[in-house]
Amino acid sequence: MKIVIVGGVAGGASAAARARRLSEDAEIVLVERGPDVSFANCGLPYYIGGKIADRNKLLVVAPEQLKARFEIDVRVRSSVESIDRTVKTVRIHNLASGEEYEETYDKLILAPGAASLRPPIPGIDSPGIFTLRNLQDVDRIKAVVDQGVKQAVVVGAGFIGLELVENLVRLGVETTVVELQDQVLPPLDKEMTTPIAKALAEKGVTLLLSEAADGFEQTPDGLVVRLKSGQELPAQLVALGIGVRPENKLAVDAGLKVGPRGGIQVNEFLQTEDSDIYAVGDAIEVQDFVLNVPTQIPLAGPANRQGRIAADNICGLSSTYRGTQGTAILGLFELVAAMTGASEKILKRSEVPHRMVYVHPTDHAGYYPGAEQMTLKVLFDPESGKVLGAQGVGGAGVDKRIDVLAVAVQSGMTVFDLEEIELAYSPQFGSAKDPVNMVGFVAAGLLRDDHPQMDVSSLMELPADERPFLLDVRTAEEFADGHIPDAVNIYVDKLRSRLDELPRDREIAAYCQVGQRGYLATRILNQSGFTAVNVGGGYVTYQLYHPPGDESNR
Amino acid sequence: MKIVIVGGVAGGASAAARARRLSEDAEIVLVERGPDVSFANCGLPYYIGGKIADRNKLLVVAPEQLKARFEIDVRVRSSVESIDRTVKTVRIHNLASGEEYEETYDKLILAPGAASLRPPIPGIDSPGIFTLRNLQDVDRIKAVVDQGVKQAVVVGAGFIGLELVENLVRLGVETTVVELQDQVLPPLDKEMTTPIAKALAEKGVTLLLSEAADGFEQTPDGLVVRLKSGQELPAQLVALGIGVRPENKLAVDAGLKVGPRGGIQVNEFLQTEDSDIYAVGDAIEVQDFVLNVPTQIPLAGPANRQGRIAADNICGLSSTYRGTQGTAILGLFELVAAMTGASEKILKRSEVPHRMVYVHPTDHAGYYPGAEQMTLKVLFDPESGKVLGAQGVGGAGVDKRIDVLAVAVQSGMTVFDLEEIELAYSPQFGSAKDPVNMVGFVAAGLLRDDHPQMDVSSLMELPADERPFLLDVRTAEEFADGHIPDAVNIYVDKLRSRLDELPRDREIAAYCQVGQRGYLATRILNQSGFTAVNVGGGYVTYQLYHPPGDESNR
Repeated sequence: MKIVIVGGVAGGASAAARARRLSEDAEIVLVERGPDVSFANCGLPYYIGGKIADRNKLLVVAPEQLKARFEIDVRVRSSVESIDRTVKTVRIHNLASGEEYEETYDKLILAPGAASLRPPIPGIDSPGIFTLRNLQDVDRIKAVVDQGVKQAVVVGAGFIGLELVENLVRLGVETTVVELQDQVLPPLDKEMTTPIAKALAEKGVTLLLSEAADGFEQTPDGLVVRLKSGQELPAQLVALGIGVRPENKLAVDAGLKVGPRGGIQVNEFLQTEDSDIYAVGDAIEVQDFVLNVPTQIPLAGPANRQGRIAADNICGLSSTYRGTQGTAILGLFELVAAMTGASEKILKRSEVPHRMVYVHPTDHAGYYPGAEQMTLKVLFDPESGKVLGAQGVGGAGVDKRIDVLAVAVQSGMTVFDLEEIELAYSPQFGSAKDPVNMVGFVAAGLLRDDHPQMDVSSLMELPADERPFLLDVRTAEEFADGHIPDAVNIYVDKLRSRLDELPRDREIAAYCQVGQRGYLATRILNQSGFTAVNVGGGYVTYQLYHPPGDESNR
Repeated sequence: MKIVIVGGVAGGASAAARARRLSEDAEIVLVERGPDVSFANCGLPYYIGGKIADRNKLLVVAPEQLKARFEIDVRVRSSVESIDRTVKTVRIHNLASGEEYEETYDKLILAPGAASLRPPIPGIDSPGIFTLRNLQDVDRIKAVVDQGVKQAVVVGAGFIGLELVENLVRLGVETTVVELQDQVLPPLDKEMTTPIAKALAEKGVTLLLSEAADGFEQTPDGLVVRLKSGQELPAQLVALGIGVRPENKLAVDAGLKVGPRGGIQVNEFLQTEDSDIYAVGDAIEVQDFVLNVPTQIPLAGPANRQGRIAADNICGLSSTYRGTQGTAILGLFELVAAMTGASEKILKRSEVPHRMVYVHPTDHAGYYPGAEQMTLKVLFDPESGKVLGAQGVGGAGVDKRIDVLAVAVQSGMTVFDLEEIELAYSPQFGSAKDPVNMVGFVAAGLLRDDHPQMDVSSLMELPADERPFLLDVRTAEEFADGHIPDAVNIYVDKLRSRLDELPRDREIAAYCQVGQRGYLATRILNQSGFTAVNVGGGYVTYQLYHPPGDESNR
């Protein structure tokens, strides 16, 4: 059997190695347009910032190694130009020699990846404007950086854009981020990104939201980025991180179906409609594991697994891809933001019924030094309690809780199961009631109705005259430090003796700092004949929606 | 309703707070023998070592706070002496005043905890010999430490014993550990504790395994600990960490059933055979979640959850306890060891069929600085692949993987599901193929028989003349650095061209450093007409069983 693989990075390289393991006899040809195979895509920003000092570290496997160990016929600097499905050949263009030739295949795996978007803005092709997908990009950026960059503009505040920002700040570059949406990290819900925006500001990064680049002009000092708002930003380096589009030309030209966003369509075996052609990685349309609809989620982990699965199926081992959850993570300075499964905005857009809770626990026992507060937001089905998605932002331990919740999503766990999760506890690693257990307690209480809750967003969307009576049950000191407008303060420990100060003809929304005291207050009130709800996640959640100093929210 | 709770730490305090949340009307009496409620049990060793500097940090909630916030009638320094089930009263002894009195109950929750074992060894009651269960213990130890301790002996190398060792080393105390078993951390499988023993030695701790204290004698300088072997150890401080026994006297005297190891027996609602009496925490017998047999696992997380569940049931909310997995973790210097579910030795002893795999990946992408190697061992059902247990040892990221695997155990996942787990990847947090995925790949390959494996232990148990031909497929340099006796070295990349050097009439056991190259070698060999297996986890696993310099293994 002869297997030709187009693309030699995550999905393609995985497919090649796996195919060889399964079949010593197969002829395996790996065709890669660039000079490198299997390079560390996700490390590129850190090489720019110097965190990864040695460029060779980014070359996970050299073409010669794939040849020596796996007997893969690796052809770099070679571009597959077309597929002839009727005779099962591909046309390969050797970019070094210029030669073109046909290669036959029995099975073809398309792993061409995705290309960075370069919008047709005037001046987009000026020198100093870069995307960041491969080592060549990074070499070009590093060359500019090494000449000395005072100001940089990063267009797009997604994962890669912000990783690049961190590294530019590390290099002492004055950095401005321009993002079309009204938040950073668009896959996350907006309020969960408030700490990220704050951290960027604290590091001196200028963040321009709901803003876009409109044009680029060369100047004696470099470039000027013209924004939609009319503002002009001088820069010696511009990096575009506004997303990617699937490299689907080969598939489209061959008459293979692509989805509405351009991803090559495959079945659960990762087979295109041509049973001899498979496709994997960033170029394909995948099934959203939670929503069970087609989507596009370019991630390294799934690409690797898909490569493996395609090879399995080609080599006679039936193997299916279960879909992508979209588990993703960003490290930014001392902060971590991560997510898995569906976000609130996606659930809303998809009209999927859901409820949510917020908790703000510390990553480990508060009595042990170094505990850091995090925020977890978990979305779940209002009937079954099935976990639909989770997001976390904070410092240490966010990655662990999102990974735990990723497994919960995969296995179809409910919030009632989260109550029962038994994680490793010792004071430096967690708490006897882990943050994930806390999520379970709060969410299960909501569903069982013994802990009625109102979301901050629902509360603030109500017209002022329809809002419940707002009861702040924190201490007088905490109240004085900041509170939700119009709230009345009665400390939870005094509540039982001051019930006569509260209205019996009006719903009461109690809140505290993170939700625990508000929960107790709600219990006291509802058992004393009042109608009360707890504002989920308390004042800390409120502040995520209404960051201090954010005038737009007043 | 009047609820009386015996014991005010993890389980008891949780039950009290939960009961109040569920019922404003209940009368809740919390009786605690000691002066403190809800103190941070698990922080005690760190207070001794000074990592937790402020003693008040260990007092999670003061009795007055329970009173003010939860209207709990807290009675500290009060001991429940007996239960009269016929009239539903308890007899309480006020240890401060000496007064004794009866208290009625509608529902009684027993949360008395467990007491440290103090074996009847001559001299056991000498000054300077301590156990470590509460703040009074810790005050006594700290008093001795503050006077200056040169040498200490810790009897028992379990979790608490080793945490104490770390803290004594932090204080500069020459420490000897005496452990009856032939390994440290007896809940783990022996080979997984090899790195722990090594770390202790590196920190200058003397580790005496298969050894026991036989007697204690007072000397002018402190104590002498006499060991079974005859050896004598001078010490100014001796700490006993040899385990605990359930505080079951109250229950036994009241005619309630206890299990063979003394744990109070309860049903899934945590109710004793007297439907008005519940029991929770370290004092009870629990169901082993994996093996589904009664056992005793004293852990803070489960105790907290049990308190909550007992209160639920008393307050009319039906709630069941699913059993305990025994997820536990130790931080020791720079090392972490953790486990969840069943160990190999427990599975063997219980005659439960199982297979296992080892992987030795890094906690995050190798190309990003600071990656640390860990060892994961996962046990699973040989038919279904269901995950039965996991152990990890290494540095960063061990806690995360064991927590992920704890959820896998809880949800009944198989090793095939582990292949598909989608964790958060970015180079500082993980790998595109996470350690947990690697476990899945290796274990699934074993079950699907496309990756036949032989355990190191099985290999070494074979008589020399029945052993397979041992093939080391690492580089000549690696081979020269150390290898399994009698192995022949052919580098994996040269294997295809040197097949004629290998026997066709004998099984071949290939191995490399961690298992990956050995896997490929096995694939090559089996597809070329040989009968080959991969030695699971390679030379690193071999070294866990045969630590360099350990003469007993030669």
